[in-house]
Amino acid sequence: MNIRIGIMGYGNLGRGIECAIRQNPDMELVAVFTRRPPESVKILTPGVKVYHADEAVAKKDEIDVLILCGGSATDLPTQTPEYAKYFNVIDSFDTHAKIPEHFAAVDAVAKQSGNVAVISCGWDPGMFSINRLYASAILPEGKDYTFWGKGVSQGHSDAIRRIEGVLDAKQYTIPIDEALNAVRSGETPEFTARQKHLRECFVVAAEGADKARIENEIKTMPNYFADYDTIVHFISQDELKRDHSGIPHGGFVIRSGKTGADKEHTHIIEYSLKLDSNPEFTASVIVACARAVYRMRREGMTGCKTIFDLPPSYLSPMSGEELRKHLL
Amino acid sequence: MNIRIGIMGYGNLGRGIECAIRQNPDMELVAVFTRRPPESVKILTPGVKVYHADEAVAKKDEIDVLILCGGSATDLPTQTPEYAKYFNVIDSFDTHAKIPEHFAAVDAVAKQSGNVAVISCGWDPGMFSINRLYASAILPEGKDYTFWGKGVSQGHSDAIRRIEGVLDAKQYTIPIDEALNAVRSGETPEFTARQKHLRECFVVAAEGADKARIENEIKTMPNYFADYDTIVHFISQDELKRDHSGIPHGGFVIRSGKTGADKEHTHIIEYSLKLDSNPEFTASVIVACARAVYRMRREGMTGCKTIFDLPPSYLSPMSGEELRKHLL
Repeated sequence: MNIRIGIMGYGNLGRGIECAIRQNPDMELVAVFTRRPPESVKILTPGVKVYHADEAVAKKDEIDVLILCGGSATDLPTQTPEYAKYFNVIDSFDTHAKIPEHFAAVDAVAKQSGNVAVISCGWDPGMFSINRLYASAILPEGKDYTFWGKGVSQGHSDAIRRIEGVLDAKQYTIPIDEALNAVRSGETPEFTARQKHLRECFVVAAEGADKARIENEIKTMPNYFADYDTIVHFISQDELKRDHSGIPHGGFVIRSGKTGADKEHTHIIEYSLKLDSNPEFTASVIVACARAVYRMRREGMTGCKTIFDLPPSYLSPMSGEELRKHLL
Repeated sequence: MNIRIGIMGYGNLGRGIECAIRQNPDMELVAVFTRRPPESVKILTPGVKVYHADEAVAKKDEIDVLILCGGSATDLPTQTPEYAKYFNVIDSFDTHAKIPEHFAAVDAVAKQSGNVAVISCGWDPGMFSINRLYASAILPEGKDYTFWGKGVSQGHSDAIRRIEGVLDAKQYTIPIDEALNAVRSGETPEFTARQKHLRECFVVAAEGADKARIENEIKTMPNYFADYDTIVHFISQDELKRDHSGIPHGGFVIRSGKTGADKEHTHIIEYSLKLDSNPEFTASVIVACARAVYRMRREGMTGCKTIFDLPPSYLSPMSGEELRKHLL
């Protein structure tokens, strides 16, 4: 029997989940839920219906795992605990500082309802976190570094759009090669924010707007840009659409550490991602982890987990025998 | 209470295990076992005794996990099932084709004795295997590639040493940049052995030996060299000792895959290792996994496992709360 998946929220991530399900023959999309008028939402999968979010609970017996595709700022802190009352759930909550609080809220509900929840799933938090964990467990005396990009930061792009005279904007976070190479050489430097990442902005200004003022406001914006070297390009709306409509991302987790009787040997562990579509890759990680949620539930587990708690084999459709034979 | 470790076999790997234990404050070396005369084996850890292998079983109540450091060809196929009768055990069995058979033998014994065994732990099989698994679960429509090196292949070095007129030799396996870069670009080529790896040999010939014949015998040796481009350098024993006495290794696991409604997006996942000491890094992975063995045993699990079955969190000394707070 297939694993029956429901999608809550049909934006970029929800669409990515739908596409990923089609690449996994042991999974089946059974319903999409939205807060918009359901008839206004067109999905890709023939025969699958779109319902209003209010109808989700009534469908609980038809869904093995409900994938929550809302935002971390306002949606997930309430949605994940709420739906864990009725469903096995998985989310991509990515406000790092609030993960412990979110975990506690979801865990309490999921333990009471007897469901399994996985929070903070994707690539960071997610695959990058796993790589930080493995690398630090293997090389306890060492230091790890996470670099992001080259990729689009939605938060930084939004911040530019709020500036007066800006019609549209896209911001790329770019890791700095010198810093990457220093880490790869086994050095363990302390970096400032400026030494690790560069920020490149493509900005569409309103006609007659003061570009010098806009550029200055971007470059001096606290938290977002002031601590970085920032490059600003003014381009037309057509150019922005033509050259910058993708949502690429990626990054690097690198740990160097020492071993040996006198710490005489250096080792470098590097994990990197180069992603054409940030939401589709995030969705692909979530869908693999939804398989783990389903299996844990069948084994009688309950409560909130993270990707740290999932045996790698639970993410794969292959049996233990197949995995040992073909991938070990 | 610390996790009490025993080491069976004190060669390069056993010494690496001893060093790794010293980097993990929750672990403690309690005994080293050897088939050599125990008094002939000098270890690094003050206060820890070396015993003959025959005395191991008598010490079973003092040891939480026995780490088996023998070779895959002849030692581990008998040692791991034998010691799983008395101990929780972990080995680095790396004959890929025989893993299913070894697993079955160890599993039967460990289930009966109520112990936990982990086999085939290290970096390949081991961390590379995990990365093949995660990447294929996340990107089901894709292809993965494993490259090894630059590093010393013991098997190939030994094969050269068996040639008449060769006094000593060291062989490096080197991944070919063009192949690596093709994979990184998202292409999914089929490679011949020759296209993926180069073999570079440093050979000490006996005085008066026919170097042209030796070079030809190396380059045409079936299985080992005939299918590769091979470079042979003749050097002196002093040069070999000075420049080639290390045991570096490493490699790359790269998967590229497609996502999206029309498979229009490409993603590249890359995991790489650059290791000054192959045995010390292997030992570091094993010691982290020994922590997982200990925890699984305490939870009442029994039988044979592989690194695929270990939740990542079990490898870390940090608690779930700490992991979620600092690494997620």
